[in-house]
Amino acid sequence: MPNSPEWPVHRIRRLPQRGSYDRAVIDPILDEGLVCSVGIVAEGQPVVIPMAYVRRGDEIVLHGAQASRLLAAGAAAPSVCIGVTLLDGLVLARSAFHHSVNYRSVVLFGAARELTDPADKTAALAALIEHLHPGRWDSIRAPNPKELAATRVLAVQIEAASAKRRSGDPLDDPEDLDWPCWAGQIPLALTRGEPRPSSQRKPGS
Amino acid sequence: MPNSPEWPVHRIRRLPQRGSYDRAVIDPILDEGLVCSVGIVAEGQPVVIPMAYVRRGDEIVLHGAQASRLLAAGAAAPSVCIGVTLLDGLVLARSAFHHSVNYRSVVLFGAARELTDPADKTAALAALIEHLHPGRWDSIRAPNPKELAATRVLAVQIEAASAKRRSGDPLDDPEDLDWPCWAGQIPLALTRGEPRPSSQRKPGS
Repeated sequence: MPNSPEWPVHRIRRLPQRGSYDRAVIDPILDEGLVCSVGIVAEGQPVVIPMAYVRRGDEIVLHGAQASRLLAAGAAAPSVCIGVTLLDGLVLARSAFHHSVNYRSVVLFGAARELTDPADKTAALAALIEHLHPGRWDSIRAPNPKELAATRVLAVQIEAASAKRRSGDPLDDPEDLDWPCWAGQIPLALTRGEPRPSSQRKPGS
Repeated sequence: MPNSPEWPVHRIRRLPQRGSYDRAVIDPILDEGLVCSVGIVAEGQPVVIPMAYVRRGDEIVLHGAQASRLLAAGAAAPSVCIGVTLLDGLVLARSAFHHSVNYRSVVLFGAARELTDPADKTAALAALIEHLHPGRWDSIRAPNPKELAATRVLAVQIEAASAKRRSGDPLDDPEDLDWPCWAGQIPLALTRGEPRPSSQRKPGS
Protein backbone atom coordinates (compact mmCIF):
# COMPACT_ATOMS: atom_id res chain seq x y z
CA MET A 1 0.00 0.00 0.00
CA PRO A 2 1.32 3.46 -0.82
CA ASN A 3 1.63 5.21 2.54
CA SER A 4 3.01 8.71 2.61
CA PRO A 5 4.14 10.25 5.89
CA GLU A 6 5.10 13.24 3.76
CA TRP A 7 1.52 14.11 2.92
CA PRO A 8 1.12 17.37 4.86
CA VAL A 9 -2.36 16.79 6.25
CA HIS A 10 -1.52 13.29 7.24
CA ARG A 11 1.80 13.61 9.02
CA ILE A 12 1.69 13.05 12.78
CA ARG A 13 3.09 16.17 14.39
CA ARG A 14 1.87 16.00 17.99
CA LEU A 15 3.53 13.42 20.22
CA PRO A 16 5.08 11.55 17.30
CA GLN A 17 6.32 8.87 19.71
CA ARG A 18 2.68 7.80 19.98
CA GLY A 19 2.29 7.52 16.21
CA SER A 20 2.93 4.84 13.62
CA TYR A 21 2.59 4.40 9.88
CA ASP A 22 3.09 0.64 10.19
CA ARG A 23 0.29 -1.45 8.75
CA ALA A 24 1.11 -4.12 11.37
CA VAL A 25 -0.06 -1.56 13.96
CA ILE A 26 -2.84 0.00 11.88
CA ASP A 27 -4.64 -3.10 10.60
CA PRO A 28 -5.42 -4.74 13.99
CA ILE A 29 -7.03 -1.48 15.13
CA LEU A 30 -9.14 -1.32 11.98
CA ASP A 31 -10.05 -4.98 12.40
CA GLU A 32 -11.13 -4.58 16.04
CA GLY A 33 -13.33 -1.50 15.57
CA LEU A 34 -16.97 -1.83 14.59
CA VAL A 35 -17.95 1.74 13.77
CA CYS A 36 -15.87 4.40 12.04
CA SER A 37 -16.30 8.14 11.59
CA VAL A 38 -16.38 9.14 7.95
CA GLY A 39 -15.40 12.73 7.20
CA ILE A 40 -16.39 14.38 3.95
CA VAL A 41 -16.77 17.96 2.77
CA ALA A 42 -20.35 18.77 1.77
CA GLU A 43 -21.18 22.23 0.52
CA GLY A 44 -17.87 23.42 1.98
CA GLN A 45 -18.80 22.16 5.42
CA PRO A 46 -16.99 19.27 7.16
CA VAL A 47 -19.43 16.47 7.99
CA VAL A 48 -18.64 13.48 10.20
CA ILE A 49 -20.96 10.48 10.04
CA PRO A 50 -20.67 7.21 11.97
CA MET A 51 -20.80 4.09 9.83
CA ALA A 52 -20.24 0.36 10.18
CA TYR A 53 -17.24 -0.71 8.13
CA VAL A 54 -14.83 -3.50 7.41
CA ARG A 55 -11.25 -3.51 6.21
CA ARG A 56 -10.71 -5.80 3.24
CA GLY A 57 -7.03 -5.80 2.34
CA ASP A 58 -6.16 -2.22 1.39
CA GLU A 59 -9.75 -1.02 1.31
CA ILE A 60 -12.41 0.05 3.76
CA VAL A 61 -15.93 -1.03 2.80
CA LEU A 62 -18.82 1.28 3.69
CA HIS A 63 -22.48 0.95 2.86
CA GLY A 64 -25.76 2.72 3.22
CA ALA A 65 -28.95 3.57 1.44
CA GLN A 66 -28.68 4.05 -2.29
CA ALA A 67 -30.38 7.41 -1.77
CA SER A 68 -27.80 8.58 0.82
CA ARG A 69 -26.55 11.97 -0.29
CA LEU A 70 -23.51 11.69 1.95
CA LEU A 71 -22.40 8.38 0.44
CA ALA A 72 -22.92 9.87 -3.02
CA ALA A 73 -20.82 12.88 -2.01
CA GLY A 74 -18.16 10.55 -0.60
CA ALA A 75 -18.01 8.58 -3.83
CA ALA A 76 -17.60 11.80 -5.80
CA ALA A 77 -14.97 13.37 -3.53
CA PRO A 78 -11.28 13.10 -4.39
CA SER A 79 -10.61 11.84 -0.86
CA VAL A 80 -12.51 10.97 2.29
CA CYS A 81 -11.12 10.66 5.80
CA ILE A 82 -11.99 7.73 8.04
CA GLY A 83 -11.28 7.62 11.76
CA VAL A 84 -11.48 4.61 14.07
CA THR A 85 -10.92 5.00 17.82
CA LEU A 86 -10.80 2.27 20.45
CA LEU A 87 -10.97 3.53 24.01
CA ASP A 88 -8.83 1.48 26.42
CA GLY A 89 -8.88 3.44 29.65
CA LEU A 90 -8.90 6.60 31.69
CA VAL A 91 -5.51 7.90 32.79
CA LEU A 92 -5.81 9.71 36.11
CA ALA A 93 -2.62 11.57 36.96
CA ARG A 94 -1.67 13.64 40.01
CA SER A 95 -1.61 16.79 37.89
CA ALA A 96 -4.49 18.00 35.72
CA PHE A 97 -2.02 18.45 32.87
CA HIS A 98 -1.11 14.77 32.63
CA HIS A 99 -4.66 13.40 32.67
CA SER A 100 -5.27 11.47 29.50
CA VAL A 101 -7.00 8.48 27.98
CA ASN A 102 -5.51 5.22 26.81
CA TYR A 103 -6.60 4.56 23.26
CA ARG A 104 -5.71 3.13 19.88
CA SER A 105 -6.79 5.13 16.87
CA VAL A 106 -6.34 5.19 13.12
CA VAL A 107 -6.90 8.06 10.73
CA LEU A 108 -6.79 7.20 7.04
CA PHE A 109 -7.37 8.97 3.76
CA GLY A 110 -8.35 7.68 0.38
CA ALA A 111 -10.62 7.93 -2.60
CA ALA A 112 -13.88 6.01 -2.59
CA ARG A 113 -15.26 4.10 -5.54
CA GLU A 114 -18.77 2.82 -5.73
CA LEU A 115 -19.26 -0.89 -6.25
CA THR A 116 -22.01 -1.50 -8.78
CA ASP A 117 -21.61 -5.11 -9.85
CA PRO A 118 -24.11 -7.20 -7.85
CA ALA A 119 -21.56 -9.94 -7.10
CA ASP A 120 -19.03 -7.34 -5.90
CA LYS A 121 -21.67 -5.67 -3.75
CA THR A 122 -22.75 -8.99 -2.26
CA ALA A 123 -19.17 -9.95 -1.42
CA ALA A 124 -18.59 -6.57 0.25
CA LEU A 125 -21.78 -6.86 2.30
CA ALA A 126 -20.76 -10.38 3.32
CA ALA A 127 -17.44 -8.98 4.57
CA LEU A 128 -19.30 -6.31 6.56
CA ILE A 129 -21.54 -8.89 8.25
CA GLU A 130 -18.66 -11.28 8.89
CA HIS A 131 -16.84 -8.37 10.58
CA LEU A 132 -19.83 -7.71 12.88
CA HIS A 133 -20.21 -11.38 13.71
CA PRO A 134 -17.78 -13.89 12.22
CA GLY A 135 -19.39 -16.97 10.73
CA ARG A 136 -22.82 -15.43 10.30
CA TRP A 137 -23.00 -14.95 6.54
CA ASP A 138 -23.55 -18.61 5.69
CA SER A 139 -26.59 -18.93 7.92
CA ILE A 140 -28.60 -15.88 6.84
CA ARG A 141 -30.69 -14.97 3.84
CA ALA A 142 -28.44 -13.25 1.27
CA PRO A 143 -29.53 -9.95 -0.29
CA ASN A 144 -31.97 -10.20 -3.18
CA PRO A 145 -31.70 -8.00 -6.28
CA LYS A 146 -34.13 -5.41 -4.92
CA GLU A 147 -32.18 -5.10 -1.64
CA LEU A 148 -28.89 -4.86 -3.52
CA ALA A 149 -30.30 -2.10 -5.70
CA ALA A 150 -31.39 -0.19 -2.59
CA THR A 151 -27.91 -0.39 -1.07
CA ARG A 152 -24.94 1.79 -1.99
CA VAL A 153 -21.57 0.20 -1.32
CA LEU A 154 -18.32 2.14 -1.34
CA ALA A 155 -14.75 0.88 -1.21
CA VAL A 156 -12.26 3.43 0.11
CA GLN A 157 -8.69 2.76 -0.97
CA ILE A 158 -6.32 3.23 1.99
CA GLU A 159 -3.92 5.71 0.39
CA ALA A 160 -2.42 7.06 3.62
CA ALA A 161 -2.96 5.89 7.17
CA SER A 162 -1.53 6.49 10.59
CA ALA A 163 -2.14 5.06 14.02
CA LYS A 164 -1.80 6.68 17.42
CA ARG A 165 -1.79 4.85 20.73
CA ARG A 166 -1.39 5.52 24.39
CA SER A 167 -1.22 2.83 27.01
CA GLY A 168 -0.06 2.38 30.56
CA ASP A 169 0.31 4.52 33.66
CA PRO A 170 -0.05 8.27 33.91
CA LEU A 171 3.32 9.97 33.55
CA ASP A 172 3.48 12.68 36.17
CA ASP A 173 6.30 15.13 36.64
CA PRO A 174 8.70 13.91 39.36
CA GLU A 175 7.84 16.83 41.64
CA ASP A 176 4.16 15.77 41.66
CA LEU A 177 4.68 12.15 42.69
CA ASP A 178 4.03 12.96 46.37
CA TRP A 179 0.76 14.72 45.59
CA PRO A 180 -1.82 13.22 47.97
CA CYS A 181 -4.31 11.70 45.57
CA TRP A 182 -4.89 8.34 43.94
CA ALA A 183 -3.35 8.03 40.49
CA GLY A 184 -3.53 5.25 37.93
CA GLN A 185 -5.56 3.81 35.11
CA ILE A 186 -9.18 2.76 34.92
CA PRO A 187 -9.43 0.22 32.09
CA LEU A 188 -12.29 0.58 29.61
CA ALA A 189 -13.44 -2.08 27.18
CA LEU A 190 -16.37 -2.60 24.84
CA THR A 191 -17.90 -5.79 26.18
CA ARG A 192 -20.57 -8.07 24.79
CA GLY A 193 -23.58 -8.93 26.93
CA GLU A 194 -25.84 -11.94 26.88
CA PRO A 195 -27.46 -12.43 23.44
CA ARG A 196 -31.18 -11.62 23.44
CA PRO A 197 -33.24 -13.66 20.97
CA SER A 198 -35.59 -11.71 18.74
CA SER A 199 -39.18 -11.63 19.89
CA GLN A 200 -40.41 -10.84 16.39
CA ARG A 201 -43.07 -13.33 15.34
CA LYS A 202 -45.02 -13.91 12.14
CA PRO A 203 -48.19 -11.87 12.06
CA GLY A 204 -51.01 -14.03 13.44
CA SER A 205 -48.67 -16.65 14.95
CA MET B 1 -30.00 27.05 21.46
CA PRO B 2 -30.60 27.88 17.84
CA ASN B 3 -31.18 24.54 16.15
CA SER B 4 -32.01 24.49 12.49
CA PRO B 5 -33.38 21.34 10.91
CA GLU B 6 -33.56 23.45 7.74
CA TRP B 7 -29.81 23.68 7.42
CA PRO B 8 -29.23 21.55 4.31
CA VAL B 9 -26.13 19.71 5.45
CA HIS B 10 -27.64 19.06 8.82
CA ARG B 11 -31.10 17.76 8.04
CA ILE B 12 -31.67 14.07 8.73
CA ARG B 13 -32.81 12.51 5.48
CA ARG B 14 -32.20 8.79 5.93
CA LEU B 15 -34.56 6.98 8.29
CA PRO B 16 -35.88 10.21 9.81
CA GLN B 17 -37.88 8.16 12.33
CA ARG B 18 -34.53 7.40 13.98
CA GLY B 19 -33.61 11.07 14.20
CA SER B 20 -34.21 13.86 16.67
CA TYR B 21 -33.37 17.54 17.05
CA ASP B 22 -34.48 17.49 20.69
CA ARG B 23 -31.82 18.60 23.16
CA ALA B 24 -33.42 16.28 25.74
CA VAL B 25 -32.31 13.42 23.48
CA ILE B 26 -29.04 14.97 22.29
CA ASP B 27 -27.54 16.13 25.60
CA PRO B 28 -27.56 12.77 27.44
CA ILE B 29 -25.67 11.21 24.50
CA LEU B 30 -23.09 14.01 24.58
CA ASP B 31 -22.82 13.64 28.35
CA GLU B 32 -22.26 9.87 28.22
CA GLY B 33 -19.60 9.87 25.50
CA LEU B 34 -15.92 10.30 26.37
CA VAL B 35 -14.31 10.79 22.97
CA CYS B 36 -15.68 12.65 19.97
CA SER B 37 -14.63 12.82 16.33
CA VAL B 38 -13.84 16.36 15.25
CA GLY B 39 -14.14 17.05 11.53
CA ILE B 40 -12.45 20.01 9.94
CA VAL B 41 -11.35 20.93 6.44
CA ALA B 42 -7.58 21.34 6.17
CA GLU B 43 -6.07 22.28 2.84
CA GLY B 44 -9.36 21.28 1.20
CA GLN B 45 -9.17 17.80 2.68
CA PRO B 46 -11.62 16.49 5.31
CA VAL B 47 -9.78 15.47 8.47
CA VAL B 48 -11.34 13.56 11.37
CA ILE B 49 -9.49 13.54 14.68
CA PRO B 50 -10.56 11.85 17.94
CA MET B 51 -10.56 14.12 20.98
CA ALA B 52 -11.72 14.05 24.58
CA TYR B 53 -14.50 16.57 25.11
CA VAL B 54 -17.14 17.79 27.48
CA ARG B 55 -20.47 19.50 26.90
CA ARG B 56 -20.86 22.65 28.97
CA GLY B 57 -24.32 24.07 28.39
CA ASP B 58 -24.50 24.95 24.69
CA GLU B 59 -20.80 24.45 24.07
CA ILE B 60 -18.42 21.56 23.48
CA VAL B 61 -15.00 22.06 25.07
CA LEU B 62 -11.96 20.63 23.27
CA HIS B 63 -8.30 20.91 24.14
CA GLY B 64 -4.89 19.97 22.89
CA ALA B 65 -1.38 21.20 22.50
CA GLN B 66 -0.99 24.90 21.87
CA ALA B 67 1.09 23.94 18.82
CA SER B 68 -1.68 21.71 17.38
CA ARG B 69 -2.24 22.81 13.79
CA LEU B 70 -5.58 21.08 13.66
CA LEU B 71 -6.92 22.91 16.70
CA ALA B 72 -5.65 26.16 15.20
CA ALA B 73 -7.41 25.31 11.93
CA GLY B 74 -10.57 24.45 13.87
CA ALA B 75 -10.51 27.77 15.69
CA ALA B 76 -10.11 29.62 12.39
CA ALA B 77 -12.81 27.68 10.50
CA PRO B 78 -16.33 29.08 10.17
CA SER B 79 -17.71 25.77 11.42
CA VAL B 80 -16.47 22.42 12.67
CA CYS B 81 -18.42 19.18 12.86
CA ILE B 82 -18.36 16.99 15.96
CA GLY B 83 -19.64 13.43 16.08
CA VAL B 84 -20.25 11.28 19.15
CA THR B 85 -21.32 7.65 18.79
CA LEU B 86 -22.26 5.21 21.54
CA LEU B 87 -22.45 1.59 20.44
CA ASP B 88 -25.21 -0.36 22.19
CA GLY B 89 -25.37 -3.65 20.37
CA LEU B 90 -25.21 -5.83 17.30
CA VAL B 91 -28.49 -6.50 15.54
CA LEU B 92 -28.44 -9.91 13.89
CA ALA B 93 -31.40 -10.38 11.59
CA ARG B 94 -32.50 -13.37 9.49
CA SER B 95 -31.74 -11.44 6.31
CA ALA B 96 -28.43 -9.77 5.50
CA PHE B 97 -30.32 -6.62 4.58
CA HIS B 98 -31.74 -6.06 8.07
CA HIS B 99 -28.49 -6.54 9.96
CA SER B 100 -27.68 -3.39 11.88
CA VAL B 101 -26.20 -2.00 15.05
CA ASN B 102 -27.97 -0.45 18.00
CA TYR B 103 -26.45 2.93 18.72
CA ARG B 104 -27.00 6.47 19.88
CA SER B 105 -25.18 9.18 17.99
CA VAL B 106 -25.05 12.95 17.74
CA VAL B 107 -23.69 15.08 14.93
CA LEU B 108 -23.35 18.77 15.65
CA PHE B 109 -22.03 21.84 13.90
CA GLY B 110 -20.73 25.11 15.22
CA ALA B 111 -18.01 27.70 15.23
CA ALA B 112 -15.10 27.30 17.64
CA ARG B 113 -13.59 30.11 19.64
CA GLU B 114 -10.32 29.85 21.45
CA LEU B 115 -10.31 30.49 25.18
CA THR B 116 -7.31 32.62 26.12
CA ASP B 117 -8.06 33.93 29.60
CA PRO B 118 -6.23 31.68 32.11
CA ALA B 119 -9.26 31.48 34.44
CA ASP B 120 -11.52 30.53 31.52
CA LYS B 121 -9.05 27.92 30.35
CA THR B 122 -8.71 26.47 33.83
CA ALA B 123 -12.48 26.22 34.25
CA ALA B 124 -12.81 24.50 30.87
CA LEU B 125 -10.06 22.00 31.72
CA ALA B 126 -11.74 21.33 35.05
CA ALA B 127 -14.96 20.52 33.20
CA LEU B 128 -13.06 18.13 30.92
CA ILE B 129 -11.53 16.27 33.85
CA GLU B 130 -14.80 16.18 35.79
CA HIS B 131 -16.40 14.64 32.70
CA LEU B 132 -13.75 11.90 32.57
CA HIS B 133 -14.04 11.20 36.27
CA PRO B 134 -16.56 13.17 38.34
CA GLY B 135 -15.20 14.57 41.60
CA ARG B 136 -11.58 14.39 40.58
CA TRP B 137 -10.74 18.06 40.02
CA ASP B 138 -10.61 19.02 43.69
CA SER B 139 -8.02 16.38 44.54
CA ILE B 140 -5.45 16.97 41.81
CA ARG B 141 -2.78 19.60 41.15
CA ALA B 142 -4.33 22.35 39.02
CA PRO B 143 -2.54 23.56 35.88
CA ASN B 144 0.26 26.05 36.42
CA PRO B 145 0.81 29.04 34.11
CA LYS B 146 3.35 27.20 31.97
CA GLU B 147 0.99 24.25 31.46
CA LEU B 148 -1.90 26.57 30.67
CA ALA B 149 0.22 28.36 28.09
CA ALA B 150 1.09 25.03 26.47
CA THR B 151 -2.59 24.06 26.17
CA ARG B 152 -5.00 25.30 23.54
CA VAL B 153 -8.65 25.23 24.62
CA LEU B 154 -11.55 25.62 22.18
CA ALA B 155 -15.23 26.10 22.88
CA VAL B 156 -17.49 25.02 20.01
CA GLN B 157 -20.92 26.65 20.09
CA ILE B 158 -23.63 24.05 19.35
CA GLU B 159 -25.35 25.84 16.47
CA ALA B 160 -27.12 22.82 15.01
CA ALA B 161 -27.31 19.30 16.35
CA SER B 162 -29.15 16.10 15.64
CA ALA B 163 -29.30 12.70 17.26
CA LYS B 164 -29.93 9.32 15.70
CA ARG B 165 -30.72 6.15 17.61
CA ARG B 166 -31.58 2.54 16.98
CA SER B 167 -32.55 0.12 19.69
CA GLY B 168 -34.30 -3.19 20.06
CA ASP B 169 -34.82 -6.30 17.98
CA PRO B 170 -33.96 -6.81 14.35
CA LEU B 171 -36.92 -6.05 12.13
CA ASP B 172 -37.06 -8.75 9.51
CA ASP B 173 -39.53 -8.94 6.69
CA PRO B 174 -42.47 -11.21 7.59
CA GLU B 175 -41.56 -13.75 4.91
CA ASP B 176 -38.12 -14.27 6.53
CA LEU B 177 -39.34 -15.02 10.04
CA ASP B 178 -39.16 -18.77 9.46
CA TRP B 179 -35.57 -18.58 8.21
CA PRO B 180 -33.66 -21.24 10.16
CA CYS B 181 -31.06 -19.15 11.98
CA TRP B 182 -30.76 -17.44 15.34
CA ALA B 183 -31.79 -13.79 15.31
CA GLY B 184 -31.64 -11.15 18.00
CA GLN B 185 -29.42 -8.58 19.65
CA ILE B 186 -25.99 -8.87 21.24
CA PRO B 187 -25.71 -5.98 23.71
CA LEU B 188 -22.47 -3.97 23.72
CA ALA B 189 -21.36 -1.60 26.46
CA LEU B 190 -18.22 0.32 27.34
CA THR B 191 -17.41 -1.08 30.77
CA ARG B 192 -14.92 0.02 33.38
CA GLY B 193 -12.46 -2.48 34.77
CA GLU B 194 -10.67 -2.62 38.10
CA PRO B 195 -8.63 0.56 38.72
CA ARG B 196 -4.87 -0.03 38.51
CA PRO B 197 -2.79 2.21 40.76
CA SER B 198 0.14 3.95 39.13
CA SER B 199 3.48 2.26 39.63
CA GLN B 200 5.36 5.51 38.93
CA ARG B 201 7.76 6.27 41.79
CA LYS B 202 10.07 9.14 42.59
CA PRO B 203 13.49 8.65 41.06
CA GLY B 204 15.68 6.97 43.68
CA SER B 205 12.78 5.96 45.92
